[in-house]
Amino acid sequence: MAHPLRIAVLGAGRIGTLHARNIAAHPQLEVGYVCSGSEASASALGAELGCPWTTDPDEALDPALVDGALVTSPNGTHIDLIRRATAAGLPTMCEKPLDLDVERIRAAREEILGAGVPVLVAFQRRFDASIAAVIRRVGEGEVGAVEQVVIISRDLAQQPKEYLATSGGLFRDMTIHELDLARCFVPDIVEVTATGSAVVSPVTAEVGDYDSATVVLRGRAGELVTIVDSRHCAYGYDQRLEVFGASGMLAVGNSAPTTVRRWTDQGAEVLEPYIASGFDRYGAAYVAELDALAESIRTGRTVGPSYDDGLAALVLADAAFESARTGRTVAV
Amino acid sequence: MAHPLRIAVLGAGRIGTLHARNIAAHPQLEVGYVCSGSEASASALGAELGCPWTTDPDEALDPALVDGALVTSPNGTHIDLIRRATAAGLPTMCEKPLDLDVERIRAAREEILGAGVPVLVAFQRRFDASIAAVIRRVGEGEVGAVEQVVIISRDLAQQPKEYLATSGGLFRDMTIHELDLARCFVPDIVEVTATGSAVVSPVTAEVGDYDSATVVLRGRAGELVTIVDSRHCAYGYDQRLEVFGASGMLAVGNSAPTTVRRWTDQGAEVLEPYIASGFDRYGAAYVAELDALAESIRTGRTVGPSYDDGLAALVLADAAFESARTGRTVAV
Amino acid sequence: MAHPLRIAVLGAGRIGTLHARNIAAHPQLEVGYVCSGSEASASALGAELGCPWTTDPDEALDPALVDGALVTSPNGTHIDLIRRATAAGLPTMCEKPLDLDVERIRAAREEILGAGVPVLVAFQRRFDASIAAVIRRVGEGEVGAVEQVVIISRDLAQQPKEYLATSGGLFRDMTIHELDLARCFVPDIVEVTATGSAVVSPVTAEVGDYDSATVVLRGRAGELVTIVDSRHCAYGYDQRLEVFGASGMLAVGNSAPTTVRRWTDQGAEVLEPYIASGFDRYGAAYVAELDALAESIRTGRTVGPSYDDGLAALVLADAAFESARTGRTVAV
Amino acid sequence: MAHPLRIAVLGAGRIGTLHARNIAAHPQLEVGYVCSGSEASASALGAELGCPWTTDPDEALDPALVDGALVTSPNGTHIDLIRRATAAGLPTMCEKPLDLDVERIRAAREEILGAGVPVLVAFQRRFDASIAAVIRRVGEGEVGAVEQVVIISRDLAQQPKEYLATSGGLFRDMTIHELDLARCFVPDIVEVTATGSAVVSPVTAEVGDYDSATVVLRGRAGELVTIVDSRHCAYGYDQRLEVFGASGMLAVGNSAPTTVRRWTDQGAEVLEPYIASGFDRYGAAYVAELDALAESIRTGRTVGPSYDDGLAALVLADAAFESARTGRTVAV
Repeated sequence: MAHPLRIAVLGAGRIGTLHARNIAAHPQLEVGYVCSGSEASASALGAELGCPWTTDPDEALDPALVDGALVTSPNGTHIDLIRRATAAGLPTMCEKPLDLDVERIRAAREEILGAGVPVLVAFQRRFDASIAAVIRRVGEGEVGAVEQVVIISRDLAQQPKEYLATSGGLFRDMTIHELDLARCFVPDIVEVTATGSAVVSPVTAEVGDYDSATVVLRGRAGELVTIVDSRHCAYGYDQRLEVFGASGMLAVGNSAPTTVRRWTDQGAEVLEPYIASGFDRYGAAYVAELDALAESIRTGRTVGPSYDDGLAALVLADAAFESARTGRTVAV
Repeated sequence: MAHPLRIAVLGAGRIGTLHARNIAAHPQLEVGYVCSGSEASASALGAELGCPWTTDPDEALDPALVDGALVTSPNGTHIDLIRRATAAGLPTMCEKPLDLDVERIRAAREEILGAGVPVLVAFQRRFDASIAAVIRRVGEGEVGAVEQVVIISRDLAQQPKEYLATSGGLFRDMTIHELDLARCFVPDIVEVTATGSAVVSPVTAEVGDYDSATVVLRGRAGELVTIVDSRHCAYGYDQRLEVFGASGMLAVGNSAPTTVRRWTDQGAEVLEPYIASGFDRYGAAYVAELDALAESIRTGRTVGPSYDDGLAALVLADAAFESARTGRTVAV
Repeated sequence: MAHPLRIAVLGAGRIGTLHARNIAAHPQLEVGYVCSGSEASASALGAELGCPWTTDPDEALDPALVDGALVTSPNGTHIDLIRRATAAGLPTMCEKPLDLDVERIRAAREEILGAGVPVLVAFQRRFDASIAAVIRRVGEGEVGAVEQVVIISRDLAQQPKEYLATSGGLFRDMTIHELDLARCFVPDIVEVTATGSAVVSPVTAEVGDYDSATVVLRGRAGELVTIVDSRHCAYGYDQRLEVFGASGMLAVGNSAPTTVRRWTDQGAEVLEPYIASGFDRYGAAYVAELDALAESIRTGRTVGPSYDDGLAALVLADAAFESARTGRTVAV
Repeated sequence: MAHPLRIAVLGAGRIGTLHARNIAAHPQLEVGYVCSGSEASASALGAELGCPWTTDPDEALDPALVDGALVTSPNGTHIDLIRRATAAGLPTMCEKPLDLDVERIRAAREEILGAGVPVLVAFQRRFDASIAAVIRRVGEGEVGAVEQVVIISRDLAQQPKEYLATSGGLFRDMTIHELDLARCFVPDIVEVTATGSAVVSPVTAEVGDYDSATVVLRGRAGELVTIVDSRHCAYGYDQRLEVFGASGMLAVGNSAPTTVRRWTDQGAEVLEPYIASGFDRYGAAYVAELDALAESIRTGRTVGPSYDDGLAALVLADAAFESARTGRTVAV
């Protein structure tokens, strides 16, 4: 390839910095521009990566200077920045969620998709090598007709109150990853039944949220997806997936930092606690999703989770919240 | 001990024969009488074990001849036989379910428990060495406060239509084991939310039942129990239990007939399909529950799952059915 | 079957008592006579099992009273008792080793085998369900031509000095089990190379023995068997077997008392220490070898490890000792 | 850091290209010069990486142009190139083996080490995260005094005859990695006992080598290290390490390309065959050893396996060969 694709990175927070560094190290990509509402953040990241920076998105979204955009700004600004980037003709990848308000996503949909350039949502789990292999192998019929999917997701430690109060709640903030994953195996979901609870910390109840939940999705063919989520986990990041079908099951288990096991008179086959950070657990997936961005830019097609995938996951999250609140199954 | 305890075995079907043979081989027990409505079954089992047989329960329930009773007759006859056995002053163990009708169980409760002799329900899983260890260790605080319990149970192969039509349905026939197990960790359950589906076989829908289901129970302290059940499983009997708490998790996995693993160019660490029969999977548990019967007879106390445990599990099963049917969480 | 086979149990020590109780509980066998040089032991075991007892072997080996014999007396008496039992026409199973002196075994061979009745050596590992499955599956060609066998065996705790001083040494006392197992996969062994060490306890060196060793056997076709033994193990009884061939590998791993695993911030997937006693680890194998005794009696054929198998294992043990002592490979 | 360290890569074969690319992607390093006896190879790699190339080592080893050297040329040229690089004052890392002839390594030792710059041997396994963790944890006393080490190493597929004929043989070519690893746990080895065999392919015997072997090392304190090697493996790259001590064991197992497991009626918990290439299995280790090179250059100290480590491993390999050939234990 003649030259690397230049990406405008909009947002210079924790995840934005991660993405920017991955782009800088990516063989097909380079950071074309860094933009942040915080001049300090933008200038620091720009200096680190040796690239121009700005606080004005439109300056960064200049198609003469960049070939695509990656939106990692605060949630409430996503839709607006996607709109600007696509209006400038730039293929765009956006961190999840597209927005916390389904109606805003719907309202902007026609304009954004009408721009005719690829739009991706950064559901990174789909790009984890093990999860991607299960998606592919289930699609090839390896377990027969899918009957039950079980997804367990437990975060390492409950986030601080400030985060929880503005995150959109357990379902829109955390479960949304599991909901997107569910759709990879059961694309046509017709009903959502959720049960939530606050047992991890008193802070959860203070912000009116749940910290533990089970969400059950029904597919049109009767498939049942069961999601078990918790805001904390003593033994590391617990992330499991099982797809059960007529002829068998495929599953992804957890990983520890090394494969070392220990045997003593206190226990046998002892693994270390699992990888302690989502950034590490899905480190390779964050890189792999940049491959999808590169391919989307080169082909002009949306290769990966789409705008509508981002919308659909949020619709399910809202339905889960309504179900948990009302004690009724919600049709979607 | 001076002499073995003599047990009247009421019922000579598949499970009754299993129990009778286990009693015959038990160091503290012997079969005192075999009784079955089928003269052929009763006489055959009596001949095999070299013990008297009859078709008349009252003949078998003679306290001069036996020290306790084990009821394994058809479901609809359980309550009546327990009533007769306890009226004769005999400590009694009954196969689950006590009955398919909660009201009949409630109606007979005062008379049966008023007899003042131990009454046990044969929820054999509680006697599985691994499950029993988890119950004990969770009780000792090893995982801290219980937050989430996940139970997966998949039968080997869907039963024939005749069985399904009279079994009482998935929740009362199969899930009842998981519901009893849930109560070992979350004794005070206040809400049931269930989702059922028929995807395994067209027969399921014909008999108006579910063959796949997820049941979520909420405990008074906000604990969530998630039960995932299926009527079939391609890879053996899938029976798993995870108890997750504030400080960790304890879990019971599956077992194969041997511990042999195979490595080829087609796959690594390949275990055989899991044990193919509940009778084998819980073979030692069926023996261990007889220890509880023996101890109950000797001590006069109900050592093990009680009549009220049998009632409580059925109440949850009925609530699960109602929830699955109506799409609403049911308070219990 | 008309009546159970009556077994004369010669020896009433720890392993003799285990065998006698297993025989008493076996559906096809019963204890016909108990014999021990210790009147106290013989009478106690006879009383427990409700069978006649004696201190005179010839009284117990009366073919009018018993159908077979099981020799579990002290090592030095094995050959003599096998001789007497077979001379009386009784099929006989003997605990390993046949003797600590290869020449005595050879000298008695013609007379003993000339009696024309089955003679078995109780190498119980061959009867472990997992090991037996590997023997069968390797025999059926599942790994292709056998190239390498690895056997790891670590005892729980070093035995007391008194035992060590008279046991015959590590190779004849402990490794002999691994040597017999090796012969199930590589029957024609031509060379033995052994390295021994004393690192577990100073007692080992005091009695002039090894407590850790690696023994390498070469088969005629070039197969290599590697045995790693230790007299102690902090984490339970470590007993592993791997058979590696042209097209793959079959292996037997270890077992813990339950299948429960634990997760905490100190470790994940923690199993309990392995089963802490050989009697428990091979409990079912001790029963299964009685099936072989029963079948040998009924068929008149030696079904299981033979007198010559017992001899061959001891020849290898002696060769290992010589190799370890001299630092030279020993042809056998 | 002001600027990346420039490395002269001597050798542009398969492993040289791997190293060169890793250097190019390394945050602290860059390829300063590529040198190969093959002009085609040198120019191609130079073009790919955008750096100068030459066929003359002395041109590449110019301390004005590079800060260190990495020798990956054919085995017979290693010592000469290390000599030239160190004479030029360049810290140098060399692929194993230093040479196939112990005497040449010894002869050059004084001159090379006398140059006073760091010299490392690229035993990449020490840099594998899991192996490195075991080395560290054993060093911290986690298993108590080391008693037994077991290392199993099986290559994926036997190399072609041309390679085998010049590789130096199984012990110097392949086992040398296990021998170096053994020294990480038992530094003071006093005896070597080896048994070799040719069962994988007739080619092995044709070139007068072994393709399967067991090597036993004795440490001064009586520790025993058992190495089991094979030139082929049907189920991927089999690389295992167990360190057993007075109070327990630490072990490193194998890895598959993903953590996906499959369950069908043919088998349970089926992992894919293990990673199929040493370059992939130790991919991260090849990068991590460059960190050691960088640190060695910056500090002037040899951080990692030293020249003497490379010599010691070859001495053990030669002793293993002699032992296998003579059937005698060899003192070292």
